[in-house]
Amino acid sequence: MKFPVVNIQLPGWVEGFLKGRGELFASVEDRMQLVIDLAQQNIEQETGGPFGAAVFDQEGRLIAPGVNMVSESNCSVLHAEIVALIMAQNILDRYDIGNGGILQYDLAASTEPCAMCFGSIPWSGVSRLLCGARDEDARSVGFDEGPKLANWEAELRSRGIYVRRDVLREEAVKVLRQYAADGGPIYNSGAQKGPFQ
Amino acid sequence: MKFPVVNIQLPGWVEGFLKGRGELFASVEDRMQLVIDLAQQNIEQETGGPFGAAVFDQEGRLIAPGVNMVSESNCSVLHAEIVALIMAQNILDRYDIGNGGILQYDLAASTEPCAMCFGSIPWSGVSRLLCGARDEDARSVGFDEGPKLANWEAELRSRGIYVRRDVLREEAVKVLRQYAADGGPIYNSGAQKGPFQ
Repeated sequence: MKFPVVNIQLPGWVEGFLKGRGELFASVEDRMQLVIDLAQQNIEQETGGPFGAAVFDQEGRLIAPGVNMVSESNCSVLHAEIVALIMAQNILDRYDIGNGGILQYDLAASTEPCAMCFGSIPWSGVSRLLCGARDEDARSVGFDEGPKLANWEAELRSRGIYVRRDVLREEAVKVLRQYAADGGPIYNSGAQKGPFQ
Repeated sequence: MKFPVVNIQLPGWVEGFLKGRGELFASVEDRMQLVIDLAQQNIEQETGGPFGAAVFDQEGRLIAPGVNMVSESNCSVLHAEIVALIMAQNILDRYDIGNGGILQYDLAASTEPCAMCFGSIPWSGVSRLLCGARDEDARSVGFDEGPKLANWEAELRSRGIYVRRDVLREEAVKVLRQYAADGGPIYNSGAQKGPFQ
């Protein structure tokens, strides 16, 4: 049997989109605005769902962006947060980007992470998670956040990962609502029915 | 800014290792034996942690294997289950491998999934999860399974995903114990310390 080389690459529009925005995003709101804009652009460019994410260093330097690429790449793993982490770890050349807690990085996500992305955070080495829209905002337009711990925020904090919620929440929610209003496809785990034993 | 193309590719030994084993793994024990052997081989070849996984179709045809490639690829996302799902979705050319519940696939994992891999399963379109070693077996040798729902099995079942635990558990545990006894590196989320705000 032969197995493929799977190439993970950001959509072609991302580099052009980032041009002229600078590389420094000083405030948490600056960082969130970027990932909300990535989510918005991902809809307009029709390259995936309405979700953006990015990894920033402590000063706010953009290390790597991510957008939802599930349908574009036929890969259910490629949520925006996962794409940003894969890119950041590749660029920094280490799987623990915090390098044992010495260095501090933010993961910004335009919507609070689903069960998978939540679970990926403790392995990644990020030290802070910035969130825009809430779980319930995603659910209210039909997205499924998956089977997630009710106390997910406390679980991250107990592992030394600080969580800041509701950063530009209203703006982040607007992107979700617009996507739903425009009839964008909403895939979720409800697609799986009828277990076999 | 320029961003990389990240290539995800199974370790070079995998294709040779699979030669001569056939492509059909009829029983759940056959499927589990394969992923335990992948875990074992991943240690011997020094390409990652002691974890193997694979996707099989309903008849037991191997679609794609996976092994833990975190250290090899400098990517914290590349647990064995995630690698197998990425490969299977690429090969089948769809992000929902079950195609809306029409087709049934197994994901076999030599150890019960961590929080991230658990969260990835409902998005993947697999209809059954086969597990070898238990969470507590992994924890007993020092691995961290992450912040995972206590009722994770019930959560999968409620989404139509059947879970079969303890398939060749003793054999699966042996690989974990051997890895730990040999002093294999055990990375976990304890590496992250000291949140910043």
